[in-house]
Amino acid sequence: MDFRGAHIISVKQFEREDVEKVFEVADSMGPFAHRELITKVLEGAILGNMFFEPSTRTRVSFGCAFNLLGGHVRETTDIETSSIVKGESLYDTARVLSGYSDVIVMRHPQAGSVEEFSKASRVPVINGGDGANEHPSQALLDLYTIKKELDSKSLQIDGMSIAMVGDLKHGRTVHSLSQLLHLYKSIKFTLISPEELKMPRKIVDSLTKAGHTVTETDDMESGLNDNDTIYLTRIQEERFSTKLEASIYRGRFRLNQAIYTRNCQPNTVIMHPLPRDSREEANELDHDLNQHPNLAIFRQTDNGVLIRMALFALILNVAEKVNDNSMAVGWYTEKRFN
Amino acid sequence: MDFRGAHIISVKQFEREDVEKVFEVADSMGPFAHRELITKVLEGAILGNMFFEPSTRTRVSFGCAFNLLGGHVRETTDIETSSIVKGESLYDTARVLSGYSDVIVMRHPQAGSVEEFSKASRVPVINGGDGANEHPSQALLDLYTIKKELDSKSLQIDGMSIAMVGDLKHGRTVHSLSQLLHLYKSIKFTLISPEELKMPRKIVDSLTKAGHTVTETDDMESGLNDNDTIYLTRIQEERFSTKLEASIYRGRFRLNQAIYTRNCQPNTVIMHPLPRDSREEANELDHDLNQHPNLAIFRQTDNGVLIRMALFALILNVAEKVNDNSMAVGWYTEKRFN
Amino acid sequence: MDFRGAHIISVKQFEREDVEKVFEVADSMGPFAHRELITKVLEGAILGNMFFEPSTRTRVSFGCAFNLLGGHVRETTDIETSSIVKGESLYDTARVLSGYSDVIVMRHPQAGSVEEFSKASRVPVINGGDGANEHPSQALLDLYTIKKELDSKSLQIDGMSIAMVGDLKHGRTVHSLSQLLHLYKSIKFTLISPEELKMPRKIVDSLTKAGHTVTETDDMESGLNDNDTIYLTRIQEERFSTKLEASIYRGRFRLNQAIYTRNCQPNTVIMHPLPRDSREEANELDHDLNQHPNLAIFRQTDNGVLIRMALFALILNVAEKVNDNSMAVGWYTEKRFN
Repeated sequence: MDFRGAHIISVKQFEREDVEKVFEVADSMGPFAHRELITKVLEGAILGNMFFEPSTRTRVSFGCAFNLLGGHVRETTDIETSSIVKGESLYDTARVLSGYSDVIVMRHPQAGSVEEFSKASRVPVINGGDGANEHPSQALLDLYTIKKELDSKSLQIDGMSIAMVGDLKHGRTVHSLSQLLHLYKSIKFTLISPEELKMPRKIVDSLTKAGHTVTETDDMESGLNDNDTIYLTRIQEERFSTKLEASIYRGRFRLNQAIYTRNCQPNTVIMHPLPRDSREEANELDHDLNQHPNLAIFRQTDNGVLIRMALFALILNVAEKVNDNSMAVGWYTEKRFN
Repeated sequence: MDFRGAHIISVKQFEREDVEKVFEVADSMGPFAHRELITKVLEGAILGNMFFEPSTRTRVSFGCAFNLLGGHVRETTDIETSSIVKGESLYDTARVLSGYSDVIVMRHPQAGSVEEFSKASRVPVINGGDGANEHPSQALLDLYTIKKELDSKSLQIDGMSIAMVGDLKHGRTVHSLSQLLHLYKSIKFTLISPEELKMPRKIVDSLTKAGHTVTETDDMESGLNDNDTIYLTRIQEERFSTKLEASIYRGRFRLNQAIYTRNCQPNTVIMHPLPRDSREEANELDHDLNQHPNLAIFRQTDNGVLIRMALFALILNVAEKVNDNSMAVGWYTEKRFN
Repeated sequence: MDFRGAHIISVKQFEREDVEKVFEVADSMGPFAHRELITKVLEGAILGNMFFEPSTRTRVSFGCAFNLLGGHVRETTDIETSSIVKGESLYDTARVLSGYSDVIVMRHPQAGSVEEFSKASRVPVINGGDGANEHPSQALLDLYTIKKELDSKSLQIDGMSIAMVGDLKHGRTVHSLSQLLHLYKSIKFTLISPEELKMPRKIVDSLTKAGHTVTETDDMESGLNDNDTIYLTRIQEERFSTKLEASIYRGRFRLNQAIYTRNCQPNTVIMHPLPRDSREEANELDHDLNQHPNLAIFRQTDNGVLIRMALFALILNVAEKVNDNSMAVGWYTEKRFN
């Protein structure tokens, strides 16, 4: 695809070479994200960071990515404050807001809304999550993390094995990640969920048809065996009709040090899109794994900044220019607390 | 007037030459707003974008305008989060906040509050809307749009004809625009509204006294004949005591392609301050006119950025310096989606 | 202490020489805060201004301080929008957010939360207020103001006399200021409060033990005699279990011109952490003193910007570099309205 001026709405837009291009540019963003160098390649540009649904971390991650490229960020954080409640169409909102900035990130609770918005926008739009539908930068950062974690163990995505755990019916992240994995070869999926929250049949069939192997189970411990990566998900209360219904499933699949040691290969990477629910009744991923070297969950969020920098750089066609006039960081960065 | 360091509280502050000065500076902002050039003329300056009432588009428009001049923006978006609810006077709020920034834009639900605030502020204050009272940058961008639309048809504001439609009783925008039009000559006004929502007698009398012609009617179709510009307004639910009362008037005056073709000259410019209510029960300005070349509503919001840049530049006395050290835009801007 | 990379969680971290170092750097920030010079010493750096509890002025003050040093600011303003409500631990929140910025200011309603957060953060954290516990930058700006006010009268903190008035039981600011004053010598404290809202015994004992003189009284007028400084506080409704309980104390201690003239030496400095409650039933510090030259309340908030600039500069180790490549301000700053 031609990234220049493109909208990024769905992972379905990408061919494998596009994904690899994003990852290559993300790699080149390291020195800037890690505060070794400063670039001002987007100095003067404005991001419209339009969040019509709360999501602190996604919003801040996109905002920081744009700041790290030297640009300004204007934001909105609440649908209540917007003209949408006064009966304004998405068409109008898009036409108006796209007159203010050079690129827009939009999050909105309604599936399909961001695509509709993008059609009227005069500047490129990145989908920051449209309800249960898509969140392409999350899928890209997940896959980018898998790639980097496997790289460090001399493995690769083609031929890998991955267990996905939790609410696979509603989980937007596992749906989008599965979609991206269609582009790769011979992956062994183990899908671990309660019977009622299984991965949609359509996705399973499509993965099989693409040459992947899929096993479904509701037995967590056996499912965890022999995987390169485990991808855990949260029971998202907001996707169920009642809190009671959500509570039936919450806490049913947990991972902790003991379960990990008992069932996983020592190399198995642990991932989670975050936030993880650490309340006792859920505790889906125990804090006793916090120091585990294969716990990749915070590397995931860190990688999110690189992926988002890469998307901005590709869309605005500055990926080749970030190093021009780059400067050393002049403030103290040594004593980081990890 | 001397713009340097001035508060912009009301359209009543302006003489015709002041308005023309704002428009001249707004014209010069084009290359920066359209991302042909970058200026850093306000690098290091801080805008305090203080919105004590929600208004996404006005807030973002002011913020972008300041970013486009190279400045920083600090914001607040909610009266609930402010000290005002703890019994703080506007005097104190102004004294405190004006120690943080170089210029303040303030929106507040209470008429007169921004003027009171400005008296205690130590930096220039621009009124971003004080309840039903004033919103001078909106009136300026409306008039600036009229001027540019008429220019392109070799017409001018002096001697033009304009129809104002909708809730002319409560509509802040039509009141302020009328006030500015006092500064021009021989304008033919057609005021179209329900009897109960007529333009205040005081304004009508004052327009007549200033040498303009005013016709009032509640018949939309006849009123639309022979105008250079039609200015539609929204029935603002929030200005009525009940939703029921608002609903009596909502949807009573609508413009669509058929009505336009039947009644208007082919050149007639269509304006609306936005947001327009596109719900079926209102639909005051139909989407079937979206592609019409005379639909100026999105040019209005785009012009808002130019006008706000001009106000900042004049108040902070940098209008003559914006071109100094300006740089070409280095990112991709070609494939805009309109 | 070594400020480089340090967390600033509590005033208890500081030795007297540390406080004096902060004040010395704050002094050097004057030309930048007063818009005589621009510095870009933190260009490219990002502040994560994380407010999980509303506080417009503290948030904007920190944000402006960072902008004045040339850095970007990313913000959150509401705990409702955050993952914390989905059961995320402070550990996770800290690990994630600290991947986005170079330094974090955090405000949170729960005592101890910022310290817990800082332990997992990978970048320095400044406590912007954790419930009833600590707000170290406020204590520093209060003491800095006292120092500058006394300087101008050729007095000094050692040996001064200060009256603290109001809710001394719950008042975070008077607790923290008292803590800092431990580092100085021979201060005469007069603590004026209702019996039920007295300064905690532990603090009084500790002050006495440190060689200071403490007098407690519930009679305002006699207590005001013979002080170099009066520090008034607000009855904070939110610290009482009911509005009724708060209302018993509100308005009980008031200062106005008549009371000041009757009881105070002509040189006595008047301070208040703001916001002051100016509703008639409270009116703790009357507006009839607004023009009084010894009313230091707005100099306090102005000094807050200097103190916060100093903290950022010290933590990020750029205090010696702010003057490098500094530039003159190019916009109009003459007609300030005070």
